[in-house]
Amino acid sequence: MSNDSQNTKKTLLSGVKPTGRPHIGNYFGAMKQFVDLQDSNNCFFMIADYHAVTTVQNKKELQDNILGVALDYLAIGIDPSKSIVFQQSAILEHMELSWIFDCITTMPYLMRAHAFKDAEAKNKEINVGTFNYPMLMAADILLYNPDIVPVGQDQKQHVEITRDTAEKFNRIFGDTFKIPEPTILKDAGVIPGTDGQKMSKSYNNTIPLFATDEEITKAVMKIVTDSSGNKPMNVYNIHLPIYNALHGETASLDALYEANAGKYKVLKDALVADLIAFIGPLREKRAALEQNLDSVKAILKAGAEKAKAVAESKMTEVREKVGVTL
Amino acid sequence: MSNDSQNTKKTLLSGVKPTGRPHIGNYFGAMKQFVDLQDSNNCFFMIADYHAVTTVQNKKELQDNILGVALDYLAIGIDPSKSIVFQQSAILEHMELSWIFDCITTMPYLMRAHAFKDAEAKNKEINVGTFNYPMLMAADILLYNPDIVPVGQDQKQHVEITRDTAEKFNRIFGDTFKIPEPTILKDAGVIPGTDGQKMSKSYNNTIPLFATDEEITKAVMKIVTDSSGNKPMNVYNIHLPIYNALHGETASLDALYEANAGKYKVLKDALVADLIAFIGPLREKRAALEQNLDSVKAILKAGAEKAKAVAESKMTEVREKVGVTL
Repeated sequence: MSNDSQNTKKTLLSGVKPTGRPHIGNYFGAMKQFVDLQDSNNCFFMIADYHAVTTVQNKKELQDNILGVALDYLAIGIDPSKSIVFQQSAILEHMELSWIFDCITTMPYLMRAHAFKDAEAKNKEINVGTFNYPMLMAADILLYNPDIVPVGQDQKQHVEITRDTAEKFNRIFGDTFKIPEPTILKDAGVIPGTDGQKMSKSYNNTIPLFATDEEITKAVMKIVTDSSGNKPMNVYNIHLPIYNALHGETASLDALYEANAGKYKVLKDALVADLIAFIGPLREKRAALEQNLDSVKAILKAGAEKAKAVAESKMTEVREKVGVTL
Repeated sequence: MSNDSQNTKKTLLSGVKPTGRPHIGNYFGAMKQFVDLQDSNNCFFMIADYHAVTTVQNKKELQDNILGVALDYLAIGIDPSKSIVFQQSAILEHMELSWIFDCITTMPYLMRAHAFKDAEAKNKEINVGTFNYPMLMAADILLYNPDIVPVGQDQKQHVEITRDTAEKFNRIFGDTFKIPEPTILKDAGVIPGTDGQKMSKSYNNTIPLFATDEEITKAVMKIVTDSSGNKPMNVYNIHLPIYNALHGETASLDALYEANAGKYKVLKDALVADLIAFIGPLREKRAALEQNLDSVKAILKAGAEKAKAVAESKMTEVREKVGVTL
């Protein structure tokens, strides 16, 4: 992906909802790719804190989650001198534009969204924010004219809703928004969980990205080994991206698994060791950053100022076209 | 109403949606009362321009409507040295708080709103803004801690929704919002239209507040006269508040109607003359203000600055409590 963006710098926007700890599936599926992308692109990393209010309605928990996401991103190598890291809540234009989108979007259209239908099927009492958050997400994206909107397969419909909304606005009020392309992340969600399914908090099969050594050991020992073939695939498939990240190659990993065919304990111990080798430094960097939360807050503040300038310029155009500017 | 607010100044908030010309029913039902209330209260008059986007999706029309409302209010005597007149769209905190309210309000609760049910019964394709605008209205009100929220009977449910929403927020995040009391305006909607029904644009029976002499004459000649009793009541009931506004009494109006019992043309001519005497000066004042739109815009700008200070202070508290302030 970084190859085709080397000629001209493209704008990338990614949002992450601060609702808990990331796992290594999130890392290889998205976060690591952002680190790679930030050298050759203008990257906006938004902490979608107002999105989180649909589910997190507790001051301390939300504050911790927001700082947690900032620490996560800075620890893995998002560089605030290259990228803009900011809180959604700091840019009121997101909610302003979201309201305008509410006004041009019909109820039946939004009710067809998968996420709404799934949520409503589980609980009729879902909140209004769970229903109209695709409008806030459309605002999040369209304010920054991004070329690249990296999303997992499950978020693809929201980018489609964003495209529809941009087109509808442009049709009613005149050409204003660039129609964004969803960029489905390579390998997104491919790293398996400890039970062989997709790694996901809802399956309780994750290895947290900043896990302690104890958590790592416990998670690996939980891995369901699969004796078909030569390798325990559930162990190997988690090991592969970790090994590659550590050594930049995987041939010697195959050699290791061949030499130890059937020795599940040896292979799990090797995975634990590599996970600790991989996660340890990230965890230490995160802990060091955590010692200086004021500088993390300052990074978010500086990011918000940069993001605000872009969002404000776009909203000046939107307000003109809607007619609230006299 | 001004009596019980003479001791301590109370805060009044009223919003008006800029969707067209006001009529004399609006004037006697609400606008005139605001002029009387502004001496003894801190009044916020909000031009709800972002609310209007649910129906007005045309730049020129919205701009004209916004300036139109400002001209209407200034022409009838709203005094920017006493009252704060401002555009909703200038205070992004309204949309920000509205989003937070979306997150704490359930779909079924909001779907029970009369206005939504009525609108949906007429058109399934209504927009999302028509559905969740009670949340924006709740934000409009609660940001300013008003003691008085003057509404017509038909808006009473929205103040109830606002009360519920304030209570819900206070319960989840701690005491933040004053629970507002709806103040049902005296005589609101009592002035009849030219067909004897409530005066309303949807009945096509209005006399515009800033009507030309021709419009006044045409509207009065349309009045359906009712020969039961001594007086043509449809003429008399419109005449009464106009006469009172001009002369400060109505006894001599009764004398006029008794002296001319059955002479519908004479009585209609008298009504036309009084309407012209009443509307003429308002119309002229409005036209004069219209010659200097820059000063009207400056009034709105100054009003927005004052309103912003109040809204910002309240939102600082809200953001702290929700947890987006680190």
